[in-house]
Amino acid sequence: MKKFFTYNWQVRDEWFQWCQQLTHSQLVKEMDGGAGSILYTLFHIVEVENSWIRGIQGKEDSMYSFEDYATLEQVVSLSNRLREDHKRFIDIELPDLKEKIIKVTWDTIAYTCDDIIHHIIIHEIHHIGQFSIWARQLDFSPVPAHFVGRDLSF
Amino acid sequence: MKKFFTYNWQVRDEWFQWCQQLTHSQLVKEMDGGAGSILYTLFHIVEVENSWIRGIQGKEDSMYSFEDYATLEQVVSLSNRLREDHKRFIDIELPDLKEKIIKVTWDTIAYTCDDIIHHIIIHEIHHIGQFSIWARQLDFSPVPAHFVGRDLSF
Repeated sequence: MKKFFTYNWQVRDEWFQWCQQLTHSQLVKEMDGGAGSILYTLFHIVEVENSWIRGIQGKEDSMYSFEDYATLEQVVSLSNRLREDHKRFIDIELPDLKEKIIKVTWDTIAYTCDDIIHHIIIHEIHHIGQFSIWARQLDFSPVPAHFVGRDLSF
Repeated sequence: MKKFFTYNWQVRDEWFQWCQQLTHSQLVKEMDGGAGSILYTLFHIVEVENSWIRGIQGKEDSMYSFEDYATLEQVVSLSNRLREDHKRFIDIELPDLKEKIIKVTWDTIAYTCDDIIHHIIIHEIHHIGQFSIWARQLDFSPVPAHFVGRDLSF
């Protein structure tokens, strides 16, 4: 699973970098489908990953509000700050938790840790796929999505 | 990796089902960004998965042309037909091949089998994310993308 997280985080950082060329109004523009604007979707990716990982860790959910992270710099900073803990968790704790049953507060069903990890990974790739459409709508080239041929540091 | 393939194939089949409500002209309409039309993208997902899996298997690449699969029924039929072999491969052969080095004819770089498998999985989820935008543009609700809470038969 570590390769998927490494890929997701690198691609996310490349989209953060890509966002630098947009105006704030392009960043918060409501786009077709998806979760809303580009900036909100980036915040949503970060926040969903964090909620599920905290759920696996048995920690209380951290509620972040987009109103408090309404600039690119704030979302990048939140992503970087949370990643420290997520990286350590995936490196060290995750391998022993695969079949552990997790019940989070926002869902009525309990899932295995392994299934939640699949869910987090898919959630980010799914939204990033949407960015490549939105990029074209704004007349920009998207960040490439390929896994092979990408230089990843695990 | 089997869970990711099972998820991808189930979601793909749900999109095939979803496509039944579209006219042929909606299916082949050139959409914003991505690989082109909805039908072409479904064909592309099937074809890319097949090429890489055949590459891992050391088989010659099967070249499929979209001109020969230009209806929904033909793409569904191709997907179903190829899946028989892919399923068997992922169930039986893949677990022993993880670190095997693979050199395919259409790329100058050699990759591990494990990396190619990551690439195939990400490729499909990425394109499926785009479908959810295109669905909204055509005024339809997209197929849900969640992994947890989905009834998957592995």
